[in-house]
Amino acid sequence: GRETKRSLCKLTDSRETDSPRRATEIKCCPAVRDGPALREPAVEMSAAERFIHEALEVIIDEAVKKATDVQEKVCDWQSPEKLRELLDLELKDGGESDSKILQHCKNAIRYSVKTSHPRFFNQLFAGLEPYSMVASFITEAVKTSLYTYEVAPVFTLMEDAVLKKMMELIGWDEGGDGIFNPGGSMSNMYAVNLARYRFCPDIKEVGLYNAPRLVMFTSQEGHYSISKAAALLGLGTKNVYAVPSDDRGKMIPSALEEKIELARSEGAVPFFVNATAGTTVFGAFDPVDEIADICERHSLWLHVDACWGGAALVSNQHKHLLKGIHRADSVAWNPHKMLMACLQCSAFLIKDKTSLLQRCHSAKASYLFQQDKFYDVSYDTGDKSVQCSRKPDAFKFWLMWKALGSSELERRVDRALAMARYLAQTVKKREGFHLLMKPEYANVCFWYVPPALRGLPDGPELWRKLHTVAPVIKERMMKTGSMMIGYQTHGDKPNFFRMVVINPQVSKQDLDFVLDEIHSLGKDLR
Amino acid sequence: GRETKRSLCKLTDSRETDSPRRATEIKCCPAVRDGPALREPAVEMSAAERFIHEALEVIIDEAVKKATDVQEKVCDWQSPEKLRELLDLELKDGGESDSKILQHCKNAIRYSVKTSHPRFFNQLFAGLEPYSMVASFITEAVKTSLYTYEVAPVFTLMEDAVLKKMMELIGWDEGGDGIFNPGGSMSNMYAVNLARYRFCPDIKEVGLYNAPRLVMFTSQEGHYSISKAAALLGLGTKNVYAVPSDDRGKMIPSALEEKIELARSEGAVPFFVNATAGTTVFGAFDPVDEIADICERHSLWLHVDACWGGAALVSNQHKHLLKGIHRADSVAWNPHKMLMACLQCSAFLIKDKTSLLQRCHSAKASYLFQQDKFYDVSYDTGDKSVQCSRKPDAFKFWLMWKALGSSELERRVDRALAMARYLAQTVKKREGFHLLMKPEYANVCFWYVPPALRGLPDGPELWRKLHTVAPVIKERMMKTGSMMIGYQTHGDKPNFFRMVVINPQVSKQDLDFVLDEIHSLGKDLR
Repeated sequence: GRETKRSLCKLTDSRETDSPRRATEIKCCPAVRDGPALREPAVEMSAAERFIHEALEVIIDEAVKKATDVQEKVCDWQSPEKLRELLDLELKDGGESDSKILQHCKNAIRYSVKTSHPRFFNQLFAGLEPYSMVASFITEAVKTSLYTYEVAPVFTLMEDAVLKKMMELIGWDEGGDGIFNPGGSMSNMYAVNLARYRFCPDIKEVGLYNAPRLVMFTSQEGHYSISKAAALLGLGTKNVYAVPSDDRGKMIPSALEEKIELARSEGAVPFFVNATAGTTVFGAFDPVDEIADICERHSLWLHVDACWGGAALVSNQHKHLLKGIHRADSVAWNPHKMLMACLQCSAFLIKDKTSLLQRCHSAKASYLFQQDKFYDVSYDTGDKSVQCSRKPDAFKFWLMWKALGSSELERRVDRALAMARYLAQTVKKREGFHLLMKPEYANVCFWYVPPALRGLPDGPELWRKLHTVAPVIKERMMKTGSMMIGYQTHGDKPNFFRMVVINPQVSKQDLDFVLDEIHSLGKDLR
Repeated sequence: GRETKRSLCKLTDSRETDSPRRATEIKCCPAVRDGPALREPAVEMSAAERFIHEALEVIIDEAVKKATDVQEKVCDWQSPEKLRELLDLELKDGGESDSKILQHCKNAIRYSVKTSHPRFFNQLFAGLEPYSMVASFITEAVKTSLYTYEVAPVFTLMEDAVLKKMMELIGWDEGGDGIFNPGGSMSNMYAVNLARYRFCPDIKEVGLYNAPRLVMFTSQEGHYSISKAAALLGLGTKNVYAVPSDDRGKMIPSALEEKIELARSEGAVPFFVNATAGTTVFGAFDPVDEIADICERHSLWLHVDACWGGAALVSNQHKHLLKGIHRADSVAWNPHKMLMACLQCSAFLIKDKTSLLQRCHSAKASYLFQQDKFYDVSYDTGDKSVQCSRKPDAFKFWLMWKALGSSELERRVDRALAMARYLAQTVKKREGFHLLMKPEYANVCFWYVPPALRGLPDGPELWRKLHTVAPVIKERMMKTGSMMIGYQTHGDKPNFFRMVVINPQVSKQDLDFVLDEIHSLGKDLR
């Protein structure tokens, strides 16, 4: 188009094109005129090395040793207002000395929550995995991006190796495709976008304007990212039909079929089903095999959100939880959760072998994905992504897998799940503790009922009072720094604790401590 | 709904609910029955510390010292097939010894491209920034996610501080809102989604089915992520209207106005304009002030993609390039490019102060964003994001800014741009080198014409031959490992080099070396 007439004269005339502004230009850049500032490097690398060395000592002392020491606090809670003062946040015109910066590093670690601590049970990640941590340091130090083989040869191949191994565990004997994403929510969005692209590739170009109303299905216990995907992708959150789950939190297959029929009867077009393998709250597994039957019957894309539960695939004892996952069209699986890879490490896997992932997301930027490179450009993964720059997260999983082997990964998962069962059994035996349900995975949900409430009859008054217990205990545990456990409501259930056991540094003693501590922090509540 | 009748009996009957399966359960988990495996931690932290220590020495030697040593290679090129063998990628059932893992670490660094090397000019990032590197190590070691203040108190406040300071530089005197994203492409997508949400909030719930055809505008030189956003968001890539740019690569405001009229005349609804501050190829700046006039007149959302050019805002000498940016509704700005923060460090900023960001993206997950917490939950930033888990990338910028001060950031930008001007002047003077255009920013684009082609008359034959020159020189520089520079076509222009100068370790000598080396690698080509 526009360039057709210009390239040649540009080519030969380039010496002249900019002459009119040269004088001002030089005035603006005295360094160019005066020279010396550009003759030498403007940084001193040996000073940089010294600083990095000192800082690494701080990191080992504070973020490794202290952070995993059960004698230390899990967190040194400060209110936002107080913490602002302690951190000296202001960015100024002048810089600060290295010793001050080291102090900032210490403070940053000190006032951060120690998610590696054996008493941290607040999230679906926990614990320190040394090999993965080292790998993540390397990815930071090497500082590269995964778009092309050319700038990230090692990490491109490692991502490929990890994805292949994960697909093997899923049971896709003929392989597939995949990519690591910044978090499981992104992976779930990719799934929706791919399903839509397979359903109607034209939407990529023309948008949804002439499309029929597309409907997706997920259980009421599914992760909120499915809904966020519907919003972002222009599909609309109302077109996510929530399928009822049973009282264990598992999607009811017949209810899925009913919702599909409902959508059809409304004139809408079902296209996507999300099955959850390991729900966020209860750790429940949807019956993938039965859901796959329904998807096959109705020609729907089956995505399995196994971000949390995918880890069970490494365990011979527990992989039955995901029975049927090999029938999925796509899978999201976050090794940064149960498998303890450093944040973030989230794989999106797809069974398709016709480069659907690339066709769906590609933009073919000529400055990055030149086709006349001297190597096989099918190694350039950038156009599979909606990102441009992308972190080499797979390496964090590759290195730890290499170090531990599949067998140790399996032992860790088995141990974490055994620990969750031990905790559930202990909760059941303890006075004043009530299990919501037997854990299917590593989520143990329970109420603590303080002595003063134990005599109350079942009913709204008890619930109302009980509802306030967990938040107060949470506040007290944070301020004491003794441990961290999440709490929440669910439906009309009063607040309960959701405790997640992952970290292999955790022993029975820690779990016993937790229950003692909850009682000790909450026994006066009424 | 579903839970209404159940919570109470669950609460009191929990000890009984799971009894039928208990026997099998215990059989599955011998560890629970046998006990000892759960009594002690399953990891030995002192061994972990030892390993981390040794690995950090490797990182300093290989990824800091060697990687920045001009005597070392920029890359140790291996073909994918050969590299596969060298890396021993296979993941096995058994683990490997720490010494073997350290060897894998060395190999991973050795065969990675040294983007910190003073001869790396291939991307819009380069160089080693020691403070940012240390900060990124800390974020990895601390291993947390930004959704709630509770689990990331320090990084929440630091993100806030950095965003505020960046908004100050943009010139939003009354502040605004913002969030760090995994890359500028995500930030650009956020902008499109917010513009759409402001235009019609209902689309979040009901989708695009009953919406008019929405049209967005970006220059032909704009980044491909705008097009990727249109695809992902269900708006359609055809509804991105490419506005012509002038021969410097700057959007032509009158052409924008024409395109807006065109869309209107077709019955479509314009809603979003992307102005680029620092285009990917030429480093051109769209005239933001004039574009803002047009957006005001037509009530369109103005987004400025300043991922690359935003850095000029820290320089009194160069900030005029972004004149008018304070009038933008949103800005994307990646400190990981010119400002050298570690990858990734990408800010998305929005002028709105009515929590549009949160309203547009929120899903209000009850397990994470409880409203009965004991602190001010407006500090929980998670619902501003389409991600769930999110990295504390702002810290990588905060710590280096604290160490260097705004004044040193400014000096670095001024120096990089002076260096680009020096390079351009040198290219112009050298026989056989042809500048495409005078650089407006840090992108220097030029052809190298080997002696054998210098006599050829302008015309298709010259172009065709010239087109093959850069790829061959690129192959040779990679295989020599002497330097890395990108090349590409543009419109119908034959392949040219795009060289980007960022790293303060680079001196004039390095630039002179580059031109000598190109000649030396390509002088035999014909």
